[in-house]
Amino acid sequence: MLVKNQHVLFVNSLMSKKIIDTVILALDEDIGTGDVSTSLLNDKIISAQIIARESAVICGIEYAHIAFLSINKNIQLQWHLNDGDSVQQNQVLCNLSGSVKGIISAERVALNFLQMLSSVATQTKYLVDKIAHTDVQLLDTRKTIPGLRLAQKYAVECGGGVNHRMGLYDCVMLKENHIIASGSIKNAACIANSKYPDLPVIIEVEKITQFTEVLSLTGITRVLCDNFSIDDLTQAVRLAKGKILIEASGNIDKNTIIEVAQTGVNYISIGAITKNITAIDLSLRLS
Amino acid sequence: MLVKNQHVLFVNSLMSKKIIDTVILALDEDIGTGDVSTSLLNDKIISAQIIARESAVICGIEYAHIAFLSINKNIQLQWHLNDGDSVQQNQVLCNLSGSVKGIISAERVALNFLQMLSSVATQTKYLVDKIAHTDVQLLDTRKTIPGLRLAQKYAVECGGGVNHRMGLYDCVMLKENHIIASGSIKNAACIANSKYPDLPVIIEVEKITQFTEVLSLTGITRVLCDNFSIDDLTQAVRLAKGKILIEASGNIDKNTIIEVAQTGVNYISIGAITKNITAIDLSLRLS
Amino acid sequence: MLVKNQHVLFVNSLMSKKIIDTVILALDEDIGTGDVSTSLLNDKIISAQIIARESAVICGIEYAHIAFLSINKNIQLQWHLNDGDSVQQNQVLCNLSGSVKGIISAERVALNFLQMLSSVATQTKYLVDKIAHTDVQLLDTRKTIPGLRLAQKYAVECGGGVNHRMGLYDCVMLKENHIIASGSIKNAACIANSKYPDLPVIIEVEKITQFTEVLSLTGITRVLCDNFSIDDLTQAVRLAKGKILIEASGNIDKNTIIEVAQTGVNYISIGAITKNITAIDLSLRLS
Amino acid sequence: MLVKNQHVLFVNSLMSKKIIDTVILALDEDIGTGDVSTSLLNDKIISAQIIARESAVICGIEYAHIAFLSINKNIQLQWHLNDGDSVQQNQVLCNLSGSVKGIISAERVALNFLQMLSSVATQTKYLVDKIAHTDVQLLDTRKTIPGLRLAQKYAVECGGGVNHRMGLYDCVMLKENHIIASGSIKNAACIANSKYPDLPVIIEVEKITQFTEVLSLTGITRVLCDNFSIDDLTQAVRLAKGKILIEASGNIDKNTIIEVAQTGVNYISIGAITKNITAIDLSLRLS
Amino acid sequence: MLVKNQHVLFVNSLMSKKIIDTVILALDEDIGTGDVSTSLLNDKIISAQIIARESAVICGIEYAHIAFLSINKNIQLQWHLNDGDSVQQNQVLCNLSGSVKGIISAERVALNFLQMLSSVATQTKYLVDKIAHTDVQLLDTRKTIPGLRLAQKYAVECGGGVNHRMGLYDCVMLKENHIIASGSIKNAACIANSKYPDLPVIIEVEKITQFTEVLSLTGITRVLCDNFSIDDLTQAVRLAKGKILIEASGNIDKNTIIEVAQTGVNYISIGAITKNITAIDLSLRLS
Amino acid sequence: MLVKNQHVLFVNSLMSKKIIDTVILALDEDIGTGDVSTSLLNDKIISAQIIARESAVICGIEYAHIAFLSINKNIQLQWHLNDGDSVQQNQVLCNLSGSVKGIISAERVALNFLQMLSSVATQTKYLVDKIAHTDVQLLDTRKTIPGLRLAQKYAVECGGGVNHRMGLYDCVMLKENHIIASGSIKNAACIANSKYPDLPVIIEVEKITQFTEVLSLTGITRVLCDNFSIDDLTQAVRLAKGKILIEASGNIDKNTIIEVAQTGVNYISIGAITKNITAIDLSLRLS
Repeated sequence: MLVKNQHVLFVNSLMSKKIIDTVILALDEDIGTGDVSTSLLNDKIISAQIIARESAVICGIEYAHIAFLSINKNIQLQWHLNDGDSVQQNQVLCNLSGSVKGIISAERVALNFLQMLSSVATQTKYLVDKIAHTDVQLLDTRKTIPGLRLAQKYAVECGGGVNHRMGLYDCVMLKENHIIASGSIKNAACIANSKYPDLPVIIEVEKITQFTEVLSLTGITRVLCDNFSIDDLTQAVRLAKGKILIEASGNIDKNTIIEVAQTGVNYISIGAITKNITAIDLSLRLS
Repeated sequence: MLVKNQHVLFVNSLMSKKIIDTVILALDEDIGTGDVSTSLLNDKIISAQIIARESAVICGIEYAHIAFLSINKNIQLQWHLNDGDSVQQNQVLCNLSGSVKGIISAERVALNFLQMLSSVATQTKYLVDKIAHTDVQLLDTRKTIPGLRLAQKYAVECGGGVNHRMGLYDCVMLKENHIIASGSIKNAACIANSKYPDLPVIIEVEKITQFTEVLSLTGITRVLCDNFSIDDLTQAVRLAKGKILIEASGNIDKNTIIEVAQTGVNYISIGAITKNITAIDLSLRLS
Repeated sequence: MLVKNQHVLFVNSLMSKKIIDTVILALDEDIGTGDVSTSLLNDKIISAQIIARESAVICGIEYAHIAFLSINKNIQLQWHLNDGDSVQQNQVLCNLSGSVKGIISAERVALNFLQMLSSVATQTKYLVDKIAHTDVQLLDTRKTIPGLRLAQKYAVECGGGVNHRMGLYDCVMLKENHIIASGSIKNAACIANSKYPDLPVIIEVEKITQFTEVLSLTGITRVLCDNFSIDDLTQAVRLAKGKILIEASGNIDKNTIIEVAQTGVNYISIGAITKNITAIDLSLRLS
Repeated sequence: MLVKNQHVLFVNSLMSKKIIDTVILALDEDIGTGDVSTSLLNDKIISAQIIARESAVICGIEYAHIAFLSINKNIQLQWHLNDGDSVQQNQVLCNLSGSVKGIISAERVALNFLQMLSSVATQTKYLVDKIAHTDVQLLDTRKTIPGLRLAQKYAVECGGGVNHRMGLYDCVMLKENHIIASGSIKNAACIANSKYPDLPVIIEVEKITQFTEVLSLTGITRVLCDNFSIDDLTQAVRLAKGKILIEASGNIDKNTIIEVAQTGVNYISIGAITKNITAIDLSLRLS
Repeated sequence: MLVKNQHVLFVNSLMSKKIIDTVILALDEDIGTGDVSTSLLNDKIISAQIIARESAVICGIEYAHIAFLSINKNIQLQWHLNDGDSVQQNQVLCNLSGSVKGIISAERVALNFLQMLSSVATQTKYLVDKIAHTDVQLLDTRKTIPGLRLAQKYAVECGGGVNHRMGLYDCVMLKENHIIASGSIKNAACIANSKYPDLPVIIEVEKITQFTEVLSLTGITRVLCDNFSIDDLTQAVRLAKGKILIEASGNIDKNTIIEVAQTGVNYISIGAITKNITAIDLSLRLS
Repeated sequence: MLVKNQHVLFVNSLMSKKIIDTVILALDEDIGTGDVSTSLLNDKIISAQIIARESAVICGIEYAHIAFLSINKNIQLQWHLNDGDSVQQNQVLCNLSGSVKGIISAERVALNFLQMLSSVATQTKYLVDKIAHTDVQLLDTRKTIPGLRLAQKYAVECGGGVNHRMGLYDCVMLKENHIIASGSIKNAACIANSKYPDLPVIIEVEKITQFTEVLSLTGITRVLCDNFSIDDLTQAVRLAKGKILIEASGNIDKNTIIEVAQTGVNYISIGAITKNITAIDLSLRLS
């Protein structure tokens, strides 16, 4: 199954520019004024492999790729899969060939990206698979590792999830405080629609009575039912009659996600897929 | 036990500058062109609290502090503890007072830093406590979250650990490849001392026979015994007779750390404390 | 009517950071290695006024304010109005007091911002007033001056307009090419909703038959009728029966805007308010 | 007349670096976290054309070129003219070939630069042509769009104008305040020459009597006659006897510029060519 | 003579911004991830002095000042002199009071700026004094330390010298190559005046015959006589009859400068004052 | 001896990135808004040479190389030597071929780097040669030109010297203040070893009695004997019996270095090789 297809880099250079900035930041903090250990070596051309030491959904290929090329642009990398593909233990992700100094100097940063982003993709895929028999979509949240939101949101997509808002700027989400300040949910939604005609409006409710109130409104993209019981979610779905989208959130984990999904909600959002990291075990082996 | 002492910010402005850069990067990715939901609110002065929802070792106060002040410099924050202090469930970390818009806009980024760095400090402290009856020191590694190495290394210190090298620039670490390239361990160490008289030289060995070879050398700061069995570590300590420092590493976890520590090695290094994150559950509650 | 209220700066520091970056860029290109003419002066404290030489809607106060303070933080500025307020010829916008060197060095950049942004606000207000007897809202477009989109979008708001999408990232707009590539409008909209559940979906149509096709779809935030005749717009409004929002665009100017507005569409978008600039005539007069 | 000559890019890479920075700033504000609409397309290679919808003097080719290449470096662009060339309505400026995603994503920013800079070049050329029968040169001013001074000054050159000082750093211009502070025009000029032997010294005068005073001085590069009547300008030219250069400025427009030019002054400076923008109508058409 | 006057910082904040950028760059390369030695100290408030260990003209006060404040904004500094003032051996330049950690961490960078810039000012003053009995002004060149041109040009002014052009952008200097390319000196000068009416035009000549050719031209700011003999310079001055300014350059040093100055040239430019550095011996002494 | 070997650029791209940043900073300050003199030329392809006008050890090839390529990427450069090689008067360092505009515009910045860094390498080599008959190594210090530490430290290596710590972050150096604050040298060293197990610990002593005290300690990398007399250094070497490394520093110059070296110390550190610059005389000659 090796050598499937050559990963295409730099399709969108501007996006790549953001990735490059992120990689350079990481290389700078690792390499600083220079890799002193490697400077003692005589350089030579070697071969190497990146290998998965456990099964996982891989993500971060472009980050790792750029890490190696930033150190030595002549390193050859042949990736045997794409972001989002699954690998088994001992599977080879990539064959490298080039300067031993360059490969060793870039190794740690490249693996740090791969192990972190593959963790996000793997955790996402694990939960997405659990609810694959339903129509529910798994959403991420803003509970991300500082500085890596774009990378992590991309990893969620690679794991089969769907991106919630990127940040505070691209979606109106009205919580209790906003509603109180505006007098009523209706008022809050009305102001939001008027000021931001092009932005989605999500109302977060914590009780079924609030949910009912939202049902009568127009201009609402979705209702986020926070910490609802299974019974309340079921009732909400019944009341909604498909006329409004429902997102369930709040302490949903691998044990409860199936039950929640089966209530018929449209989305489940889970912070754990981005705020918790269990680094995937990968290693670079010189041939 | 509240109001212990006011956290002192900006003692070292240049370090704070690095922290500020990191915080601004995170705020930028979250807030982008503006917090649209908050813009619908009428501003007013409110009080709020940051509360721990589980017990933890807290770290990241300055990051959170700067996040709030970057959004609105008039927010008042009174921290009731210092980085490295332990908290219990429901304990109040900080009382805030100021613009409701500012507090809500900065909340997520502030908590993202606190929950991530407190995770590192808490995991570190958990392992440090396990070996507190020995003289062994717990070291971190270069397996860190890209872009957050300085922050995570600081969190390790807050948890009672000790920092290994910051990156590739401030320590010579000779692994198998370096040794092969130089002909012998002796040769490699000699070149390292000559070129970098001011840098520590650590030799990584994978077998007890290599360890014995290192024992006869001078100019070695420490030997890193990678993936040694308990028996081999015990033998290494006996052979060393206190004349060289020994670091054990490789798949040491909460189950095996005590046994490793009791072999008498000087250091144990564990990547998991920085590469794995289990975000500490914190919340901001408006009064 | 002078001295109405002191303009409040720095409410949201992060936004101010973006404004500061923009102002510093402009100061750098003007001042470069130093203001040589002013360096010949003996400094002294003077008073000055910024005066409108023609009636206008003013916008850019914070930009001008920051320009002066960036050159000399001790300059005192008292603004007699807020962004969005109208002024008459010869009306005083601001009283300044401080270093003559600082005031003269910052003058041009401060006025360049004010004259440009006030142009946007004034042109916007002029068109908004023309359709004030209807419920139609005036939208801006992405036809902006490079580097100044945020500033210009803000000026549109100050003139009574409403912001269309900020850029390509916060709204799905499907044009002919997207529709062809997806097979049908329905298909295109369906994919958009699935991939970006939190983003608005706007369909651009060029013929009334396309409009009719869109009417049968769900998940559409708005239909943009490009270059429709008055008759076609009227028919579209009648067909929509209030169930979908309609935006008219394409070569609408001060002469045709009223007629378009009276068709009953919900929005009119006009590129001219941001792509064309007729600088408002302002001057700084030393007392 | 098509396919005249291939525009040569990157002759001076450092200048290009400044242009690239300006273009990236504009792309960033438009594209942000990604072009969501285009991400729904299947990519394919297409052809396209940039067409002038009205006659104009074109400027900004390198800016537009870089905008496309920054998004996708494989887009092929064949420009059929150079900056400063005139085009007629419906004339093709450029043929493009490449990724439909890349072309659509970069389109708006590329056109925003072209329409703005071509406006400056066109307005400049319009006025330059009016005075082509005289020896008078048309100068720009510091009344420019913030952040775009270099670009606009370049556009003025493309339109046949000549650049006045770039900013406050490369020319001493003594106005009333400087003269008062120095005691006399003579004193002010003397100090200027002594401190900045390599900088031009321009004196701004508002009355014919001041002009006469300047005539007796040495070390003056040029006299700027601000808001002089035609009679006063005529008298100034007669008094100068060709021994000093004269620049006329202040409320000179398309109606009065010929009369002013015919007085025999050497330069006319007009802020309107850079502070006012009437975007040239251009469009990108997919083949 | 102590405590003359408190140095006024931040008069011109934008210039200070450039200075701050330069200082931060230097602090970053010295302090990196933190001052490890100082981190072992208990902090306390101490007093300290910066002392001259040799006589010198001091320059760089604002750079040193910012270095200390960037590390700890509560350090108090009382400077007893201004840039450009002379000091004797053992004279106290500044009294400091504040955090011992902050003072020690900033010490080296602060002194590095002071010792380098005072070297420039001292060397300049030494040569200026030698020709003080003439009207000749000492000019610097573009032979500067990379990254420090603004700082060094400022130091030249503090030493009594005058700044030649800042760089390639603010002065036309026509050398042999330019003249050959243009056909004749007259042609070259004519084109320069036409394209850059606001820039000085300096012609560099290497033979007296070329000098004579320049004499007949108009629009020339100054003639630079490169490597002329004393006889040729004398002849050039006689030929010029005061109608054109003359600059002598080329291998002029402390031994030959008086003779050159006495020929009656207007300027002497010397690269050595900025390209050669003999660091002034300064030290910081804790009380 | 020409055309020895083509200098290999960009082996380590990340390091090159730091070099590029430094070169761009220098080009920006020289070229600013453009090279006005060169803009008057018609471009053409020419040949040129960089020639040494005096004997020297050359350093800075990559800096110069990047300076030319940054201005025009098509300039061809053939270097006839490597950094660290010696040249004689009139020897050709490099043959260039390419755009005359590009070569002239980059010339000054390229030479400024070469003349400065070659000065450091030459001064270093001069001193290293003086002590070549001993085993002593010449160290640099932190007394460097602000902004150029990495470049200068590299030049020291090229001259045969060895790098002391790069800055405050990669070495613990305990001076009198640290020792006083910690109670004793033993205490200070112990704390340093415990907190920074991976950093070298250097103790600075000023008297032979302090030296004796250090001898009894463990965990000390080196003792720095500051301003010791020859007799005291000799005694220190005798006392050390080869068990601890000794560095001599303090007012050691070309006259005293041999005598110091012959005492048997291991290192001599000299600030003058980086804080004093005597620019090597190089020139670029057009063929």
